Amino acid sequence: MAVNLSAPSADSLHPVAGVRIGVAEAGIRKANRKDLTVFLLDAGAAVAGVFTSNRFCAAPVQVCREHLAHGDIRALVINTGNANAGTGEDGLVRARATCIAAAQQLDLAPEQVLPFSTGVIMEPLPLDRIQAGLPAAFADAQPGHWLRAAEGIMTTDTLPKAFSRQVQVEGVTVTITGISKGAGMIRPNMATMLGFLATDACVAASLLPGLAFELAEGSFNRVTVDGDTSTNDSFVVVATNKARHAPITSLASPSGRVLKEAMLEVARLLAQAIVRDGEGATKFITVRVEGGATVEECRKVAYAIAHSPLVKTAFFASDPNLGRILAAVGYAGITDLDPAGVDLYLDDVHVALRGGRNPAYREEDGQRVMKQPEITVRVVLGRGSAVDQVWTCDFSHEYVTINADYRS
Amino acid sequence: MAVNLSAPSADSLHPVAGVRIGVAEAGIRKANRKDLTVFLLDAGAAVAGVFTSNRFCAAPVQVCREHLAHGDIRALVINTGNANAGTGEDGLVRARATCIAAAQQLDLAPEQVLPFSTGVIMEPLPLDRIQAGLPAAFADAQPGHWLRAAEGIMTTDTLPKAFSRQVQVEGVTVTITGISKGAGMIRPNMATMLGFLATDACVAASLLPGLAFELAEGSFNRVTVDGDTSTNDSFVVVATNKARHAPITSLASPSGRVLKEAMLEVARLLAQAIVRDGEGATKFITVRVEGGATVEECRKVAYAIAHSPLVKTAFFASDPNLGRILAAVGYAGITDLDPAGVDLYLDDVHVALRGGRNPAYREEDGQRVMKQPEITVRVVLGRGSAVDQVWTCDFSHEYVTINADYRS
Repeated sequence: MAVNLSAPSADSLHPVAGVRIGVAEAGIRKANRKDLTVFLLDAGAAVAGVFTSNRFCAAPVQVCREHLAHGDIRALVINTGNANAGTGEDGLVRARATCIAAAQQLDLAPEQVLPFSTGVIMEPLPLDRIQAGLPAAFADAQPGHWLRAAEGIMTTDTLPKAFSRQVQVEGVTVTITGISKGAGMIRPNMATMLGFLATDACVAASLLPGLAFELAEGSFNRVTVDGDTSTNDSFVVVATNKARHAPITSLASPSGRVLKEAMLEVARLLAQAIVRDGEGATKFITVRVEGGATVEECRKVAYAIAHSPLVKTAFFASDPNLGRILAAVGYAGITDLDPAGVDLYLDDVHVALRGGRNPAYREEDGQRVMKQPEITVRVVLGRGSAVDQVWTCDFSHEYVTINADYRS
Repeated sequence: MAVNLSAPSADSLHPVAGVRIGVAEAGIRKANRKDLTVFLLDAGAAVAGVFTSNRFCAAPVQVCREHLAHGDIRALVINTGNANAGTGEDGLVRARATCIAAAQQLDLAPEQVLPFSTGVIMEPLPLDRIQAGLPAAFADAQPGHWLRAAEGIMTTDTLPKAFSRQVQVEGVTVTITGISKGAGMIRPNMATMLGFLATDACVAASLLPGLAFELAEGSFNRVTVDGDTSTNDSFVVVATNKARHAPITSLASPSGRVLKEAMLEVARLLAQAIVRDGEGATKFITVRVEGGATVEECRKVAYAIAHSPLVKTAFFASDPNLGRILAAVGYAGITDLDPAGVDLYLDDVHVALRGGRNPAYREEDGQRVMKQPEITVRVVLGRGSAVDQVWTCDFSHEYVTINADYRS
């Protein structure tokens, strides 16, 4: 059961001029599933991506990096059911063959196609089924198919994830629409399992890689479900340059900032949606760490809390067993941390004061917060003014069930 | 259900000359439980300890460190039911008061007493109950009470953990007997939750701290259940110097090596017993990483695998979803790892060859190994000759049940 997340309605998702989307059932792993999704981009779009830091990065991730270096991307091909990771040289051949097949049908060069795969690791990509499914996906392509795309990239997700915003840039309405997928093996290190964000804004192509990185840092790189960094994390940002405003040449300009903020909002909603739909999740938890000497140490502490199985099972049980949070703060790797400087809050409840139990803390107050579906854990380190936060979920029986049964 | 672990019989545990043990029911958290254990050491024993690296280390850990600096330790007082951690200054006062109470009854100085606590974090230690329980524990003291001690320090453990060995040192029979406890919050960084190892061997006091560290490194510092480093990890080594052989003045001497090997064997059995009895464990897993450039990088990879919830749930399900292991290798932090150099074995089954699926691998072979109660995962990195290994367990529904219900 996802936490405060529902399926988007198709008409809440604004089409992005210059982007058409098609979906097909290619039977990649199971029959009767939308498992093949294509994005077709008009000429002139700028595209950038950030990808997993996992050394066992999937074959399509390697091919994406190569093709993005060429520029002039015109199509994205995404399959579920098979991750094409841990597949060695043969996996690379199959990822390239996917691009070649798509390019032939679209009259493009293979380098103009980006491939994405998600699903089971270490099994050969069923190339024939993808090739056979492509014509139906291309034939299905429409600007209004964002919801179909969000459905088409789901694996263990229980809900499609898509958000859309419109903002004014120099008096012109600009659209930002994106989709994401992922529920397990989620601890993005460059981006999430799969995220796609498109805008019709006019943005200098040279700005896109930095923009994609900044957006990932503020969204997908701040979520975790189980601490497992995927082999396939990919986050792609597209600017189709269709909107009729003067091109944005600096993200620090007023127009640049308006656009970036709106894109960050959508990216963050997409990233948080992955946590809300995290495998077995029953709670959505914001871990905010303040008063650090550096942002880096705040992040370390936030992730130590967010990854602790003991903390996550306590949230599942609505049990204010808050010593487990202090223990995680203590082993997060700040070697000169003074426990006597540390305070802990659950929402507005002041639990720990200067490293010990707050004398004013009453267990029923902690219990009240722990029962909520959304909880903010706030740790104040008392060492400086740096702040960072991550979003995570609890750890339930359902998580074990899902991951003990996946593949079967 | 512990994995291939049964309760020791009382007569398999050799008494150690110079050590007497007493246990009492002090009602610290619940009634009718052995929850207070004392060790009484004859004069002349050498004692050393290694302790948690958690910055929120418990009050008794801080007091132990102080008192060990004084030397001449004569008593250990161990309570379960309350960890006296995350308790600030008040916790320190209570840990010291425990030592004062014991010292008064034994006619010792408080500095000659080491306190240990294990149980719930961030609740005040019920000092009055400990003080009231001490006389019964002292009155119970006998050399043959090792099994009672192993029972007396249990918390979520399902079985007492104790092992004993005898070896010949210069023709004299020397005894080594130890106990441990722990099942959750297990990722020792200096030692486990609680481990005590005693020998009657004659060892120069100056050798004890280094010996304790080496033993911890080869045993308790190589196990993990859930990756949560406890606030109370303590491992104490006692040499009573009662055996009538010439004192060992170097661990590199023939006698020193015989003793160290035997002590390491017992320490490793105690550490592995914690994993076998890990919360919800159904499998005992050895993760061995070979061919690393350094031991440190082998350890990183081993722990990444041992901590991955996805790997652990796959073991629970006996599902050879081995891509999850490769993914963990990939995110373990070796930034220049070449996946094409990596091989993976499950016991004798060669699963991955040069970073991809071994063409000769058959899923039924992986399945056969995954169904065993004991499994060795062997990763060959292909970067050098360093080796390291850790021991862990799987991740089951029972783990969630135990940790969602603990305290209630």
